[in-house]
Amino acid sequence: MALIVQKYGGTSVGSTERIRNVAKRVARFHREGHQLVVVVSAMSGETNRLLGLAREITENPDPRELDVVAATGEQVTIGLLAIALHGLGLKARSYTGAQLRILTDSAFTKARIVEIDDQRMRKDLADGTIVVVAGFQGVDRHGNITTLGRGGSDTSGVALAAALKADECQIYTDVDGVYTTDPRIVPEARRLDRITFEEMLELASQGSKVLQIRSVEFAGKYMVPLRVLSSFEDVDSPSPGTLITYEEDEAMEQAIISGIAFNRDEAKVSVMGVPDRPGIAYAILGPIAAANIDVDMIVQNIGASGHTDFSFTVNRNEYQKAMGVLESQRGTSFEAREIIGDNRIAKVSVVGIGMRSHVGLASRMFKTLADEGINIQMISTSEIKIAVVIDEKYLELAVRVLHKAFELDKGALGPTA
Amino acid sequence: MALIVQKYGGTSVGSTERIRNVAKRVARFHREGHQLVVVVSAMSGETNRLLGLAREITENPDPRELDVVAATGEQVTIGLLAIALHGLGLKARSYTGAQLRILTDSAFTKARIVEIDDQRMRKDLADGTIVVVAGFQGVDRHGNITTLGRGGSDTSGVALAAALKADECQIYTDVDGVYTTDPRIVPEARRLDRITFEEMLELASQGSKVLQIRSVEFAGKYMVPLRVLSSFEDVDSPSPGTLITYEEDEAMEQAIISGIAFNRDEAKVSVMGVPDRPGIAYAILGPIAAANIDVDMIVQNIGASGHTDFSFTVNRNEYQKAMGVLESQRGTSFEAREIIGDNRIAKVSVVGIGMRSHVGLASRMFKTLADEGINIQMISTSEIKIAVVIDEKYLELAVRVLHKAFELDKGALGPTA
Repeated sequence: MALIVQKYGGTSVGSTERIRNVAKRVARFHREGHQLVVVVSAMSGETNRLLGLAREITENPDPRELDVVAATGEQVTIGLLAIALHGLGLKARSYTGAQLRILTDSAFTKARIVEIDDQRMRKDLADGTIVVVAGFQGVDRHGNITTLGRGGSDTSGVALAAALKADECQIYTDVDGVYTTDPRIVPEARRLDRITFEEMLELASQGSKVLQIRSVEFAGKYMVPLRVLSSFEDVDSPSPGTLITYEEDEAMEQAIISGIAFNRDEAKVSVMGVPDRPGIAYAILGPIAAANIDVDMIVQNIGASGHTDFSFTVNRNEYQKAMGVLESQRGTSFEAREIIGDNRIAKVSVVGIGMRSHVGLASRMFKTLADEGINIQMISTSEIKIAVVIDEKYLELAVRVLHKAFELDKGALGPTA
Repeated sequence: MALIVQKYGGTSVGSTERIRNVAKRVARFHREGHQLVVVVSAMSGETNRLLGLAREITENPDPRELDVVAATGEQVTIGLLAIALHGLGLKARSYTGAQLRILTDSAFTKARIVEIDDQRMRKDLADGTIVVVAGFQGVDRHGNITTLGRGGSDTSGVALAAALKADECQIYTDVDGVYTTDPRIVPEARRLDRITFEEMLELASQGSKVLQIRSVEFAGKYMVPLRVLSSFEDVDSPSPGTLITYEEDEAMEQAIISGIAFNRDEAKVSVMGVPDRPGIAYAILGPIAAANIDVDMIVQNIGASGHTDFSFTVNRNEYQKAMGVLESQRGTSFEAREIIGDNRIAKVSVVGIGMRSHVGLASRMFKTLADEGINIQMISTSEIKIAVVIDEKYLELAVRVLHKAFELDKGALGPTA
């Protein structure tokens, strides 16, 4: 018998029929003798409908009141799921974030969980009751309803699993696990049985949008074993999904590269010929940060003759804004020979925990791209990731050849090719 | 400066545009210096949509969970209205029933209010904040969400007004007050400036569905001055509506008859030739009550030769069921010569507090109907009401001639005609 926290996203509870299916899935685990806490999102489309109503009234709705409106989406789902579980003859009880005292700070629309009281849940679980919890929401110490921001239901699930020291936190989505890359681009992409939190973070932040990043960080911090599964498979013969673990076990060491991530939502900005002096990075990026523009990759080369080139990427939507900020600061905050930008780029990353102890991976990546005539515009590396910026028209080709070069279709990286 | 509780029903908040209009109306009262507590229903159609979702899942949804789902309707409206008030530059704060500790019993889907803590509201009101409250809902002492049953938002408004000892509780609907009768039948029907609680109870229970009966009883019990108004009139030149008072002041004594109520949702059942002995009424009505059939009028004539006739009315939907119950009990619970029924009847009532001190009203009513050839099938009277059952095809005619005979189009009853 295990204590399992299950989280079902919006599409998994998108209709009353799907909610009945979720109830059947929960019932199967219950029959197997597990204790269950089920966290649910709003029915798909519902949160947007609610926020849309608020925006019909005024362009900038009051955040406290926006949370009052938005929190109803999940409240509807918990009631409906509990009704469905009762309909199957099971004991179930729904709780809003406030009823369960999921205590958050008061940062409306993007609150952070501070504390969860697990006593009420434990009492229910002890008498065989299935606990159904509204994701995405909590309550501050003044009793105000708060929400954790979009996608926050994943975080709710992980936080509850951490508070209960659950044996596993299962995140049900519309995909059956984490893949070596996007199967729409590489049909040979494989589902990973296991992946480490760090790899998952790199994969998720690079655009593999399976899990909300914050929930993965949270799971890593509290060492909650996280499993990604599909809620659309047959209840009686489910796929095991992908287990995200906080430890590198032996099986993991075999796989050096776990996946290829990519992102085509970025644009590149380069400030050429800036003086190579302390403080230049801040002189350039300070005004960008002040304009609330998020920066992803940052690259600066060793300068020659007292000058250097400085490049970074921003979200494509903020490209024009970023260029405008730089042009307006040029000559005051910093001197530069030229400011150039490109919003037709894509980022491709090779991610793997095994990178730490294996050399030669970067060069294999670069050679693979070179063999296809793909020029690399920027390179950035971390402990477990090599990311490159290329012309966006080569994105699919790059992902395919890298997937093959690292033998991700075969399950594990063989000896150096 | 007064403390006013305003309640807006589903059609008054049926769209974001209408919610903005409600905000403007609230703002006008606020500008006049009043302290305001605003109670709102779910947007029209929303409660039915939510209950429909629950019924899609299972035919008999768990009542606790049904309340969790249903309560979201009002929660959306309070958030939206508070957003609209903020948009007008006003301080406003929304509260669910649970947040305000509107304590109820645990009778899910039909809970009754036990206690309201007014401290939180008073604190807000004192600093100029408009308090926006979700109607129709509360919380039991275990923290479970409860609802007061359909139409319960009126009761919420009155209960809050009672707890706050408000100067007035204004109920906004889609009509601009209580009329002497239905203007669709009698175009000369007049809006009453004032009416007593008792008259209102008789009018409402007879089918003038302006206010929920329970809220009127509640208002009478706690002596809350209640005013019925329209939310669809011009914000800047509103009609005064109808004030429902608990005292008979001088102005009231002038009006002997306040209105003509009617109801065509009933059916008549007569048990003829039953033994005229103690316990016969229970022998007949006991099985009806046991079958959960509500009975409205009950009439028994003085019997002759040891036998009597016993008649009552039930809701038309339960007519066949009632007939079946009686036939099955005949010969065991009671003896009867004949059981006959008629579901083509209508009830017409003349209501007025002045009836207490004026004689001759019943005979005027009966003569008026007789002059038109309308046969009276049953008669039942109370302190302030005379109700008759007639053939339903004469209903409109009866209402029109009675309205004229009691000179309701002229404002007050003159000397005996």
